[in-house]
Amino acid sequence: MNPLRALVAVACSTVTLRLRSTAPLKSLRSITTFCPFRKQESVAWGSKKHAARRKVQLQSALLAMDPAVEEQLAPLRARCKEQGDKVRKMKADGATEIDIKREVQELKARKKELEDTILKLSPPDTFDRAKMNDLIKRRFFYDNSFAIYGGITGQYDFGPMGCDLVDNMMGEWHKHFVIQERMLKVNCSILTPEPVLKASGHVDKFADYMVKDVSTGECFRLDHLIKQHFEKIKSDKKTSQEEKEGIERKITLLDGMTMEEMDKIVKDYKMKSPLTGNDLTDAVEFNLMFPISIGPSGALKGFLRPETAQGIFVNFKRLLEYNQGKLPFACAQVGNAYRNEISPRTGLLRVREFMMAEIEHFCDPDDKSHPKFSQIADLQMRFYSACAQMDGESEKMMTIGEAVHGGMVANETLGYYMARIYQYLLKIGINPKKLRFRQHLSNEMAHYACDCWDAECLTSYGWIECVGCADRSAYDLGQHTKASGVRLSVERPLKEPRIVDTVVALPDKGAIGKTFKKDAKAVQEALVSLSNEEAEKMDKALSEAGEYELNGFKLTRAMVPNFKREQKKVHVEEYIPSVIEPSFGVGRVFYSLLEHSFRVREDDDKKTYFSLPAIVAPVKVSVLPLSNKSEFIPFTVQLANALTELNISSRIDDSTGSIGRRYARTDEIAIPFGVTIDFDTCNNTPHTVTLRERDSTEQVRIPIEEVAPTVRLLADGKMEWKAVTDKWPKFVAQETTK
Amino acid sequence: MNPLRALVAVACSTVTLRLRSTAPLKSLRSITTFCPFRKQESVAWGSKKHAARRKVQLQSALLAMDPAVEEQLAPLRARCKEQGDKVRKMKADGATEIDIKREVQELKARKKELEDTILKLSPPDTFDRAKMNDLIKRRFFYDNSFAIYGGITGQYDFGPMGCDLVDNMMGEWHKHFVIQERMLKVNCSILTPEPVLKASGHVDKFADYMVKDVSTGECFRLDHLIKQHFEKIKSDKKTSQEEKEGIERKITLLDGMTMEEMDKIVKDYKMKSPLTGNDLTDAVEFNLMFPISIGPSGALKGFLRPETAQGIFVNFKRLLEYNQGKLPFACAQVGNAYRNEISPRTGLLRVREFMMAEIEHFCDPDDKSHPKFSQIADLQMRFYSACAQMDGESEKMMTIGEAVHGGMVANETLGYYMARIYQYLLKIGINPKKLRFRQHLSNEMAHYACDCWDAECLTSYGWIECVGCADRSAYDLGQHTKASGVRLSVERPLKEPRIVDTVVALPDKGAIGKTFKKDAKAVQEALVSLSNEEAEKMDKALSEAGEYELNGFKLTRAMVPNFKREQKKVHVEEYIPSVIEPSFGVGRVFYSLLEHSFRVREDDDKKTYFSLPAIVAPVKVSVLPLSNKSEFIPFTVQLANALTELNISSRIDDSTGSIGRRYARTDEIAIPFGVTIDFDTCNNTPHTVTLRERDSTEQVRIPIEEVAPTVRLLADGKMEWKAVTDKWPKFVAQETTK
Repeated sequence: MNPLRALVAVACSTVTLRLRSTAPLKSLRSITTFCPFRKQESVAWGSKKHAARRKVQLQSALLAMDPAVEEQLAPLRARCKEQGDKVRKMKADGATEIDIKREVQELKARKKELEDTILKLSPPDTFDRAKMNDLIKRRFFYDNSFAIYGGITGQYDFGPMGCDLVDNMMGEWHKHFVIQERMLKVNCSILTPEPVLKASGHVDKFADYMVKDVSTGECFRLDHLIKQHFEKIKSDKKTSQEEKEGIERKITLLDGMTMEEMDKIVKDYKMKSPLTGNDLTDAVEFNLMFPISIGPSGALKGFLRPETAQGIFVNFKRLLEYNQGKLPFACAQVGNAYRNEISPRTGLLRVREFMMAEIEHFCDPDDKSHPKFSQIADLQMRFYSACAQMDGESEKMMTIGEAVHGGMVANETLGYYMARIYQYLLKIGINPKKLRFRQHLSNEMAHYACDCWDAECLTSYGWIECVGCADRSAYDLGQHTKASGVRLSVERPLKEPRIVDTVVALPDKGAIGKTFKKDAKAVQEALVSLSNEEAEKMDKALSEAGEYELNGFKLTRAMVPNFKREQKKVHVEEYIPSVIEPSFGVGRVFYSLLEHSFRVREDDDKKTYFSLPAIVAPVKVSVLPLSNKSEFIPFTVQLANALTELNISSRIDDSTGSIGRRYARTDEIAIPFGVTIDFDTCNNTPHTVTLRERDSTEQVRIPIEEVAPTVRLLADGKMEWKAVTDKWPKFVAQETTK
Repeated sequence: MNPLRALVAVACSTVTLRLRSTAPLKSLRSITTFCPFRKQESVAWGSKKHAARRKVQLQSALLAMDPAVEEQLAPLRARCKEQGDKVRKMKADGATEIDIKREVQELKARKKELEDTILKLSPPDTFDRAKMNDLIKRRFFYDNSFAIYGGITGQYDFGPMGCDLVDNMMGEWHKHFVIQERMLKVNCSILTPEPVLKASGHVDKFADYMVKDVSTGECFRLDHLIKQHFEKIKSDKKTSQEEKEGIERKITLLDGMTMEEMDKIVKDYKMKSPLTGNDLTDAVEFNLMFPISIGPSGALKGFLRPETAQGIFVNFKRLLEYNQGKLPFACAQVGNAYRNEISPRTGLLRVREFMMAEIEHFCDPDDKSHPKFSQIADLQMRFYSACAQMDGESEKMMTIGEAVHGGMVANETLGYYMARIYQYLLKIGINPKKLRFRQHLSNEMAHYACDCWDAECLTSYGWIECVGCADRSAYDLGQHTKASGVRLSVERPLKEPRIVDTVVALPDKGAIGKTFKKDAKAVQEALVSLSNEEAEKMDKALSEAGEYELNGFKLTRAMVPNFKREQKKVHVEEYIPSVIEPSFGVGRVFYSLLEHSFRVREDDDKKTYFSLPAIVAPVKVSVLPLSNKSEFIPFTVQLANALTELNISSRIDDSTGSIGRRYARTDEIAIPFGVTIDFDTCNNTPHTVTLRERDSTEQVRIPIEEVAPTVRLLADGKMEWKAVTDKWPKFVAQETTK
């Protein structure tokens, strides 16, 4: 094993919400952990508190630290490293898992202390979340669902702008991944029968802990309740500094706690319902899937899928066949998934209904090289490796080539996808300074996973996991193979044929048919797929005890009188492919993109807008006749038709109001280009109009028939604005709002 | 009222499945009624029966009838007209609803008899559904969900080809409707709280009837069960011809029957469970929505939405505001909807999870003209009006302009959308000879609807409703206004100001605050929104009884001591907009498109393919190097990159096997163009390749660098294949499969 990889293979507690994973599903309760602004969490979307427009200081942790700051951080870094080394040593010495876990919790607490301090000491970045939310609601990017019926938490409706932005983001996603990487695609059922999600582990493990108000039945998420209670104690003036620090420590440790440990805290602190003051029940596990009954009889139990990945796995054989039996191949799925969150409160970041975009790349476990790796090997990215996290270090810039060939990232295919994710996020407008890849510590990863990295975006809620990228080994296909009895495997030719011993049951079909009737076929099939070991065991049992139970069917010697033992020459071997899985939380990428592109004009802080790249902007161009005078109409119509002809989404605003005011309105909905039809358009030939760029507010005069093709190129990212200003004369006008 | 419209306003029974409507939701059980091939219904998708590849004769009802056939039909047509006239007369004479209904059932039976005979006598069209289904499964267009776990009825997974075809269909839909008509767009929650669907009528009325096996609990849809039982009697050799005719009659009448009438049949015929022979329960109503509990407490009841329309209605105020308060505007939504079908059996035509695309066009009820109507007025379409249905006539071709201005179609906006739907369906490849617009008879329509037409496609299941297009008046917004208390209305200026009397309650706020505390605000608001009538009633009650209950709050004279009466001059009036609603069942359009484009090569009936238009074809071009010799590789790579650069989806097939065999494979998945790289490509400059068109199998030789731009134009529908054969030399080669 590579020494760097070995270092990663120590245990440390999870800190971010996993978009998907199977084994450690319980650790889903955690998105706010990274958030340095705890008070902001209570600024729930839709509550009136956001009207206060409190300025949020968003500190970027990513700017280079000055030496004075580094001096303050040095002892904290050392404390992390000391604890990281301790954990490594325990691991090496073979300490018990429970002992390691305790020390890992301590490591995590120290790491959090370091990260919080970094954020606190970084140069402030002004971002006004209330102001942005106001714009989002006012121009209906998205808003609470069913508001006229009182609204509902954790569900959002996307308006025209939000809808188009998501569509454009996903259109680029489709080009970037599905087309350019030649992926397959599926669209599978959301209503999922129970056995599928039993096999994936979701029925047993996809849960959060909660307590209920004993008299009203109101539910509270256990960790949120404790945290809220602790925050209250902390903010109490009577609480001593020492007590505060103790509480702070406990908050940090919450994430790693078991249900029992948290339950004990509730009882120790005599916590009550924050709404009624009533007593609380003991903590219980609550499965986050929405149960559903399919068909009228109630007999077929199912769930709304909690992720899109399973649909791809259960179709593996069809996809393999579609791909003419060849590996590797990747299959993508974009669609809704559902989680019945106990008390969703952080806007789009934690919702009950959400869009995911997942890719499953199936490959040979022994060959995870990627033919196109060299194309992206020189891409510089920001990595926050498991080692760095344990050593109290910060993120590091390096090329993905260095990261993979140095052994930090497990293999080329995983690295290739990380690079492609990075390129995609930048293309749609994510700020590279607020984007990092954080490696999962080994106890965050499912036990079967080889390596896992999250693309995290820095927002006013802290670092948010937006895209997961994991090497999940053969786990998923293995689970479904076991549960369904259908082998989701691939054959590969052996370099040299191999001689193998085989033990085959030779049943008496008549006897089996007579006894098991319509189940006879199932019994026959079970006998055919026996492993050598099972066959030997059965033969022995039938000889000694006279009977043997196979999949619930009791078999006798009369039914299986003989077993054939022989040697066979085999030319192929069967294997279950590995899966590399990039998994996008579309709503989270969308939200981060809005935060990263939110701007306030320097000359007027009431003028807010989104600086979205033209390729994803919901509407590409606005058409503004100077007034609603009839002489402008033919030009407006001409332009509108030309734009429609080229499938360019446009918005005509012929309302009264100054051009400046109307531009401000179009800026708000992120329209990157604007055309004004003025008196010069009517009076002069060739007829020209002004074309304006949103971010710079620069304008040129351009012949009207050049507008549509120019905007098409700009909107496709095939032309830069500079080429426009180079080609056409600048137009200077005041954007007064009068 | 227009005399033609008046004719339509008589009652007649429903025959097709409505994609959506509110009042007559119960009549959803009916898709198979139009089906002339009853035996085919039992060929359930995924059952082994389809392997029999039974030829289905698809008779087109649309070819001109020859005189001999017309002679046979004449008496049937007369029988329809006679009964239609009788119904009209009863209506005119003011007969009771129940009497009319009885006669309408008879009318419907005669109409069905006529239609079945037309289909029977039409020239046969050979269509082999089993052959098509085999291709669909084999190349994974779509297939049963969760097949490795035994599969599940009424749910389908779309594979790479199905997925891309749907995406391309919906991409064209977006351009055709959203972009070209400048519509707004929303994407709303699927999890819907109960009050929303209570207001829409779905909680009370969205149901089918069923019976259960008393001992196993197995459920059967009542009408399906009866029909199946009757079919069995009919096919029994012992049944006399007279009995058969009686049974046939009863089957025809099934659709119009009440639950009680059907239940009586079950008892009269002593029907048992067809699976076990056990007794059956009494019939019950079964609501087709999937109930769901939102949040962990179980207190918030909801459903998976049964249609997408409600999400648009509940967002009406936001959308109106987004549109700067102006009407008319239209809003589109594309997304999943869910119906818990009792026993779905007809493939994609009746499923539990499906995609809809709905448009709600909001307009002034007094002005339903459409500014772009003249652009489509001359479009010839096939209409099957309510009158024609009652008079025993067939469909008629006429222009939409004639249809609207002659009064057959209610208004320009409705007509405009019908024309746009027609254009869209033709654009994506629906056969115009198998497409008609059928008008709802008045008792098929919701009581509030003004007019409703269904775009129906002829398939091997009969005429299938694929798109509904209805003028729903102000019903939907009115219902949500009533239920939510939020006025979903618009103001328009009055031509002249009007003097109105007003009665306004003057509450004692202090007294109300003291009594109702946190509810005081709600009480105040209720008082402000009192109508004049309510205010007068309250004043009287307070004077006489001393108290009055308002929204559950008991008010006394002390709380509302006075009422102010005055006259006010008002300049605007408020109205609830009308809604014109085109509603697409995407899966049904998709399925009809597959049937309409399924082809078998004349020279080899094993060569099947889909003749999909290039704009919707899943993959636009295949690249086939003659063999996997290394000299071809650079050209394959060059071409693949050029195609990717222009976002053209392509498929490289460098497998061994003859070019002919490989072309047959690409034809199967509807790839419209194919490129072969051969020795001439390598040896000659300029390097040329062959380019082949799927339907004609014609080929040209074309320089390799011309391929990508040419295919881009072809795939966008901006160039015809003829232009290619005109420009480049034809290439003749045998497509041998050896």
